[in-house]
Amino acid sequence: MQPPILPKDFIYGIHAIEECLLADQQIDKLWIQQELSQSEAVRALVQQARQRHIPIHKLPLAKLNQITRKNHQGVIAFLSPIRFVNLHQVIQATYERGDVPFVLILDRLTDVRNFGAIARTAETSGVHAIVIPNRTTARIGNDAMKTSSGALGYMPVCREGNLAHTVAFLQNSGLKVVACTEKTDTLMYQHQYQGPTALVIGSEEDGISEEILALVDAKAKIPMFGQIGSLNAAVSAGILMYEVVRQRLQPPANF
Amino acid sequence: MQPPILPKDFIYGIHAIEECLLADQQIDKLWIQQELSQSEAVRALVQQARQRHIPIHKLPLAKLNQITRKNHQGVIAFLSPIRFVNLHQVIQATYERGDVPFVLILDRLTDVRNFGAIARTAETSGVHAIVIPNRTTARIGNDAMKTSSGALGYMPVCREGNLAHTVAFLQNSGLKVVACTEKTDTLMYQHQYQGPTALVIGSEEDGISEEILALVDAKAKIPMFGQIGSLNAAVSAGILMYEVVRQRLQPPANF
Repeated sequence: MQPPILPKDFIYGIHAIEECLLADQQIDKLWIQQELSQSEAVRALVQQARQRHIPIHKLPLAKLNQITRKNHQGVIAFLSPIRFVNLHQVIQATYERGDVPFVLILDRLTDVRNFGAIARTAETSGVHAIVIPNRTTARIGNDAMKTSSGALGYMPVCREGNLAHTVAFLQNSGLKVVACTEKTDTLMYQHQYQGPTALVIGSEEDGISEEILALVDAKAKIPMFGQIGSLNAAVSAGILMYEVVRQRLQPPANF
Repeated sequence: MQPPILPKDFIYGIHAIEECLLADQQIDKLWIQQELSQSEAVRALVQQARQRHIPIHKLPLAKLNQITRKNHQGVIAFLSPIRFVNLHQVIQATYERGDVPFVLILDRLTDVRNFGAIARTAETSGVHAIVIPNRTTARIGNDAMKTSSGALGYMPVCREGNLAHTVAFLQNSGLKVVACTEKTDTLMYQHQYQGPTALVIGSEEDGISEEILALVDAKAKIPMFGQIGSLNAAVSAGILMYEVVRQRLQPPANF
């Protein structure tokens, strides 16, 4: 199957970006010319962008001119091939369809290739949405799209300003939030994932933040036997996602 | 656990090389400064290297200085990041230790990063040896070593001239050879891996060769639900290896 066609990288100008926001086109980030950031038109645009959790960067004119010399009016929006969606709506729609929610939270993942591979596995294993922090370091653009083998064209992605709030929202929505971490003695097989479930995957460098670890319902460890004692983030995410798949295909007796 | 320090291309200094020899690290060759070759310390080192069949080259100081200007004490050892071993010996040794063999065969894998990530998961999941074809296309050097996070320093790798012969040898040695392929209706959970097992992982482009598929004892499919219908090779290898781990930790009831 062919991956969907990638949109071009950016658009510019107040009106074009406004249209784009209204049409709910996927904007990765918005560049605003510092000197114009207080103008009425720009401020209105910024407000609309903020409501959609779009990251906003104030930069000098020269920086914007490096992107395009055309009449950008002090605003450039970088488009994303990704479908950014509202997490509340995804959860609601999943329940309404009679599905059991399965959400993946990526806490500070930095490697674009890992992000792409994780999205590919998520799409394949039936994940309903991937949640990433608003200020995520992995730039989700065409590189991630390519590594995902096109899966990011199908995979709903939610940008959230505060992952702690997201965890609370998911818990209030009936999801069990399970952190994939080595900081536990409980193996991933010892938890049950047949019910509504969110998995949290941490960064390649230092895992899941302490703040999030303190909030989750359960911690799950992948057993490891060798000298290295750590897995690639995309591989460990895949192993955990497929433990959910396995249990949902047929509940295990006990473990 | 911290990943071990990656061996650079070379190490230098009497003590460092001595340690390396004692730890049975794979040394490609040893350079000795001509003028120092009769010194007591260097002679002791040469003797140890000879016992391990390591090629020794006596060279002028200038040659060694081209490699490093640091205090090499007249000795530089070039390291091979990989431990190439004999498959027969690995299987025999595994049985003799009372372990249940767990072997991973990589059929024509071409991506070095995938190879590294697979080696990392193999090391972590208790695989005893990775088998690759002699004329494998993935160049196994420091790139693979780096992506493996050092795992290739611990993971025995077997280079085999003919994978069909290897499959036959493993079957004769009591291993069940299971191909990870989409060309079957049987899910990976429906096979049992508690006994001696070899998994076959195919290339990123076109999976496992027809020749090998015709020889294996079983075919196992990873269930997929999305639009994309394929996984990254390192991720799918990881999912399959960890199904073996799960079953070996506790046999499943039925499925």
